[in-house]
Amino acid sequence: MNVMLCGDFDAAEAQAWQQALAAAMPEARWWTPAQARAQPAAVQAAVVANPQPGSLQGLPALRLIQSLWAGVDRLLADTTLPAGVPIARMVDPAMNAAMAETALWATLALQRDFFTYARQQRQGRWQQHAQRRADEWPVLVLGQGEMGRTVARALAGMGFPVTGWSRNPGPVDPGVTRIAGDAALRQALPPARVLINLLPLTAQTAGVLDARLFAALPRGAGVVNLARGRHLVDADLLAALACGQVGHAVLDVFHAEPLPADHPFWAHERVTLLPHVAAQTDERSAAAVAVANLRAARDGAPVRHLVDRGRGY
Amino acid sequence: MNVMLCGDFDAAEAQAWQQALAAAMPEARWWTPAQARAQPAAVQAAVVANPQPGSLQGLPALRLIQSLWAGVDRLLADTTLPAGVPIARMVDPAMNAAMAETALWATLALQRDFFTYARQQRQGRWQQHAQRRADEWPVLVLGQGEMGRTVARALAGMGFPVTGWSRNPGPVDPGVTRIAGDAALRQALPPARVLINLLPLTAQTAGVLDARLFAALPRGAGVVNLARGRHLVDADLLAALACGQVGHAVLDVFHAEPLPADHPFWAHERVTLLPHVAAQTDERSAAAVAVANLRAARDGAPVRHLVDRGRGY
Repeated sequence: MNVMLCGDFDAAEAQAWQQALAAAMPEARWWTPAQARAQPAAVQAAVVANPQPGSLQGLPALRLIQSLWAGVDRLLADTTLPAGVPIARMVDPAMNAAMAETALWATLALQRDFFTYARQQRQGRWQQHAQRRADEWPVLVLGQGEMGRTVARALAGMGFPVTGWSRNPGPVDPGVTRIAGDAALRQALPPARVLINLLPLTAQTAGVLDARLFAALPRGAGVVNLARGRHLVDADLLAALACGQVGHAVLDVFHAEPLPADHPFWAHERVTLLPHVAAQTDERSAAAVAVANLRAARDGAPVRHLVDRGRGY
Repeated sequence: MNVMLCGDFDAAEAQAWQQALAAAMPEARWWTPAQARAQPAAVQAAVVANPQPGSLQGLPALRLIQSLWAGVDRLLADTTLPAGVPIARMVDPAMNAAMAETALWATLALQRDFFTYARQQRQGRWQQHAQRRADEWPVLVLGQGEMGRTVARALAGMGFPVTGWSRNPGPVDPGVTRIAGDAALRQALPPARVLINLLPLTAQTAGVLDARLFAALPRGAGVVNLARGRHLVDADLLAALACGQVGHAVLDVFHAEPLPADHPFWAHERVTLLPHVAAQTDERSAAAVAVANLRAARDGAPVRHLVDRGRGY
């Protein structure tokens, strides 16, 4: 099988991916975009990570586009994507585990005032706050794909009452209250002490973290955005933080990345920001997942985690 | 049953405990130290929280001393403690859960560089670091009492390879490698990326977190002290941080509390300090635990979590 590897890697990352993929599937030929362009009719699959728009056109034998990233919003925005070729998202168990770690760390820090204690340390202030019990600190997880479900299960395992929401009903995990649809979301917001966003970015979900949603949360709630910057209306969050409606925010993703130096999030004492590291793809496990799909496509077996282009994820 | 309640509470705390205990055991008479001193021969039990030395002498009918705190090192240092009266430590499930939350939060922050990212935010720096997998980040928990075991189980539940150490062998939990004795400890230190101290404070364990122990850890290890300040040799930790042998420390307890304003931990960028809040006793659940023991003592039934005065905990 002839596979084109193309993405917005630097040279070291490209080499690491090339090595991990070649080790997982030594029987394939792994081509750079330049090598693929030399014989476009021979390219049978593409493994991509935010490829340049246009990278995937003019490849008549292409039978699978496998993303290395879980989010495919930027990939799908390429209007030249070949229409008939299936696209698969990355669903990497190691990446799901990393997301659960980040979400649990952020939730524990919010519940137990650890961000407040860090601020107090910088002020030289020794002050204890009343301890909140996990079983009295409801968490609402928006998005119940593989990542949202892994996060919800990890939180439930530490005793938090967890509600998992998505637009449509889906599988139910032990310990997680699973809800779907707009009416259910409106009811789930008022008790949610912590809101964690893991939705896919689509036309419907862009800007979902806005003033109306913040106003429906209990006063002082924590907001954790681990999905995409465009889910969040930055100005609405700043206003909600200023009036205390949102108590603290943990943000991993931004409208522009790196976050511009003059953005008010950098110096905001109630914003904890991460440089898009909530869950990095793990080369070793992701290569195995991608290769399993490539072999399935080669052999005519079912490919996993196919993207519904109409739905957007 | 006539019960004296005495501790180093402020007035509001004393009232909260009095109410929680009276609600859990309405059939008892709950006396302040002054009320108890008015009729010392009638006092049948004492519920204590770091009482003033001498508070428990001259009470001839005393049949149980129930601590509200898990650590009894300060209580046992009272040379006037009546010799024949059993002493029970507090083992509060809500407190154990709180300790597991703190330990898991600290471990996740160390494993995933979240303390580093917080420092970068203050510096306005956007920089990603390689993501470490939990299953490749061994954690060593010193102390395998109820708290140490609860912490070890929570860490194992998130995929960390966990070793639990104590001086003597004891119950083994699923997912936790249980070791005992000095030789086993020496072998467990070199692979431990994170060391969590939950030992009781005794003559043997005072100063256990010292230069020799830090030197046996892998370079850059995280050190988390959630037990007692006197377990740690402060100067040795500062030296180990200065040379990079210890990468970061999370400290909840100190030789003097509040930590003096001029102590170098306050402003150290690789020390995260908490104001002794890793696990606060939960009045509601602790009152139920204390009352169960009081009723057992009253009825001649076995009292739980008795202190071995020779052992020191």
